[in-house]
Amino acid sequence: MNACIVAVGSEMLTPFRLDTNSLIVTDRLNAIGYDVRLKAVVGDDVNELVRALSAACEWADLVIVIGGLGPTEDDVTRDAIAKSVGVPLDFHEAVLERIRGRFARRGMAMPEINRRQAMAPRGAVLLDNPNGTAPGLYLTRGRTSVIALPGPPREMTPMIEAVIRDQLAAGSGSRLFRRVLKVTGRTESDVDAHAQPVYGRWLTGPVPIATTILAVMGQIELHLTARARSREEADGALAQAVDELNAVLGSAVYSVDGRSLEAVVGDRLRERQLTIAVAESCTGGLLASRLTDVPGSSAYFERGFICYSNRSKTELVGVPEALLAEHGAVSEPVALAMALGARAGAGTDVGIGITGIAGPDGGTPAKPVGTVAVAVAVNDQTRVGTYQLIGGREQVKFQASQTALNVLRLMLLEESAGSARDS
Amino acid sequence: MNACIVAVGSEMLTPFRLDTNSLIVTDRLNAIGYDVRLKAVVGDDVNELVRALSAACEWADLVIVIGGLGPTEDDVTRDAIAKSVGVPLDFHEAVLERIRGRFARRGMAMPEINRRQAMAPRGAVLLDNPNGTAPGLYLTRGRTSVIALPGPPREMTPMIEAVIRDQLAAGSGSRLFRRVLKVTGRTESDVDAHAQPVYGRWLTGPVPIATTILAVMGQIELHLTARARSREEADGALAQAVDELNAVLGSAVYSVDGRSLEAVVGDRLRERQLTIAVAESCTGGLLASRLTDVPGSSAYFERGFICYSNRSKTELVGVPEALLAEHGAVSEPVALAMALGARAGAGTDVGIGITGIAGPDGGTPAKPVGTVAVAVAVNDQTRVGTYQLIGGREQVKFQASQTALNVLRLMLLEESAGSARDS
Repeated sequence: MNACIVAVGSEMLTPFRLDTNSLIVTDRLNAIGYDVRLKAVVGDDVNELVRALSAACEWADLVIVIGGLGPTEDDVTRDAIAKSVGVPLDFHEAVLERIRGRFARRGMAMPEINRRQAMAPRGAVLLDNPNGTAPGLYLTRGRTSVIALPGPPREMTPMIEAVIRDQLAAGSGSRLFRRVLKVTGRTESDVDAHAQPVYGRWLTGPVPIATTILAVMGQIELHLTARARSREEADGALAQAVDELNAVLGSAVYSVDGRSLEAVVGDRLRERQLTIAVAESCTGGLLASRLTDVPGSSAYFERGFICYSNRSKTELVGVPEALLAEHGAVSEPVALAMALGARAGAGTDVGIGITGIAGPDGGTPAKPVGTVAVAVAVNDQTRVGTYQLIGGREQVKFQASQTALNVLRLMLLEESAGSARDS
Repeated sequence: MNACIVAVGSEMLTPFRLDTNSLIVTDRLNAIGYDVRLKAVVGDDVNELVRALSAACEWADLVIVIGGLGPTEDDVTRDAIAKSVGVPLDFHEAVLERIRGRFARRGMAMPEINRRQAMAPRGAVLLDNPNGTAPGLYLTRGRTSVIALPGPPREMTPMIEAVIRDQLAAGSGSRLFRRVLKVTGRTESDVDAHAQPVYGRWLTGPVPIATTILAVMGQIELHLTARARSREEADGALAQAVDELNAVLGSAVYSVDGRSLEAVVGDRLRERQLTIAVAESCTGGLLASRLTDVPGSSAYFERGFICYSNRSKTELVGVPEALLAEHGAVSEPVALAMALGARAGAGTDVGIGITGIAGPDGGTPAKPVGTVAVAVAVNDQTRVGTYQLIGGREQVKFQASQTALNVLRLMLLEESAGSARDS
């Protein structure tokens, strides 16, 4: 079953405001098996809303219109639905009495303009609005159900839940269930080249799974959507799908349950009872800030050194001046000295050092903007590398912190595998 | 001139992700007089995108399609535009070479699937993408201009700006001009109570100005939109409007040109040739990271100490153990000792100390979650205060860093005023 959501309101066509109601409606519709295939935002213009409604009704089984049910002249949803379906508006005395009563309970007289809210397209079922004056509307146009709900989220949310429970849920068979895999350290095209032969087969399985690949800064996400008749059925199919992707993507997959990279690394540190200290130059505290975004991170994060100047690299984490002079501040030996110095200073098990050129200035032909050296020390293991990161200053900072977290994650994984083999 | 924005991507039809690119595009289109009358989100389905494009082209002068230009199978925008306009796709050798070169510069071979990005509908002008592999597309379908841009914001934003400058700007009549004022340390209703009597008059002036108030984390923004025939006319009206708001809001306004608080503070430090060091507990490096988000911040940011454990507060910035025992780690005396210790250790002019309870755990009846002590030392002045911040862990961290930056900004303002009086 296909659904379309139309949000009505000129303010959502400015640079300042988004339609967020559709996220709630999508969540509730997915749960009873509706697939939202199109979303639209239309201004407070009756003709444009009629046009959008007619287009939506041509192919969707269900059209949800949100907003435009208020009492003012620019609330056009009632008119537009009536025009689009080809019926007149009727006046409902009982609705007017209800609205009057709402005002009276607050000791106020009903403004005359609220009469508009007692009008409804002929044939519409009026939906109760426990938190506001505007009733919702439910009617059909050809094979399509059209539902109109008010825009304020605290009015809209209980109403979509009620209409789903009372009108829509019956008779829907399958539902949608989701899983998000997160991958880092690989490009989108590389991930897709490996994953496509796998997920390409799922669309036609007994529990069909649709897959979307999404590149976001420093990581790739694979969104898996299964259509199934029950959670058990979906869980089984999704678990197998995740296994198949893990088999082709291996340790590049860092999360199959939506957790962030810093949360995954944090959980691993906590399980292993390891503590961590960091020394950051170009990331300027971002790595520490991400690590400490995780609730409970004080169990493993001990301290951080932000060594922005050369002098602070020497004074705070003991990078020898000679090393800085010989290799430059952005170099693997300096990153390693920072990681080891941070760890020694803090007395922790893990140390990370990051030094690089975040830009926009400071690049050279040999070390262009985006050059970042990352060193990680875990117990008696150290790993150091140089990376060419792409983007503006904030992108370079983020990706440098992402790289450091991922190197640490992989080292902890390998150490676990090693100790499992040894035991 | 009417515009329509179509965002392409199935992930934006889930309950988890919104199209936010359209806000940027709307802002840039408004600036040259285009009115965005419809926005749509379509999934990665070529037939549905063709249908949406055809509907949009029927009435809009300009259709902007965002996303779906990546290298994978589910990137369908090139195909959909070609089908919708009724032209074949052509292969562009020069584009392929450019993409290969981009991979080569990162020491990688181009995956074969990236060839797809060298295809374009016949007749399309290819738009340069300085930050990615996918070129944009510009072509016409009847009287409508169709522009396709890649989805990642850092690729999309410079491309819409270039296409507006090079292809669209000529020939538009009255245009929209904007100014954004940023305010911190006041509530939205308090700001509106002072500002509304002022901006309420502007709608009917010779150059009408519409005002929107927007509360975002840790700050209030006032968006002023003037409709004028020329930049000069708009600039005059907006400058007067900004003066009137400054008169009622005073030093709570920190930016009238869109600069972030960290950039405003950074500029002031640089002008005054002051250097800064910070000691952070609950913000975990976020304050330093924000300060170092500003290009050129190495001129004033010397170092930072992230003193997450009590031991690190003593070892790194010399907070006496007795002080921690007597007042607790979250206290004004400890915040002040951190600020002074950071400054003394780094040898800078300015020191900041932040200690608090970011939550969700760690609160007590006397010091609930959100309690944050902030101390700032500038030359011979110190200021210390305790704040009750609201929200989850990341909100508390952000607002604590915002508070520290704002206290420093106000101290620098007052010092300037004082020295101006003295001289």
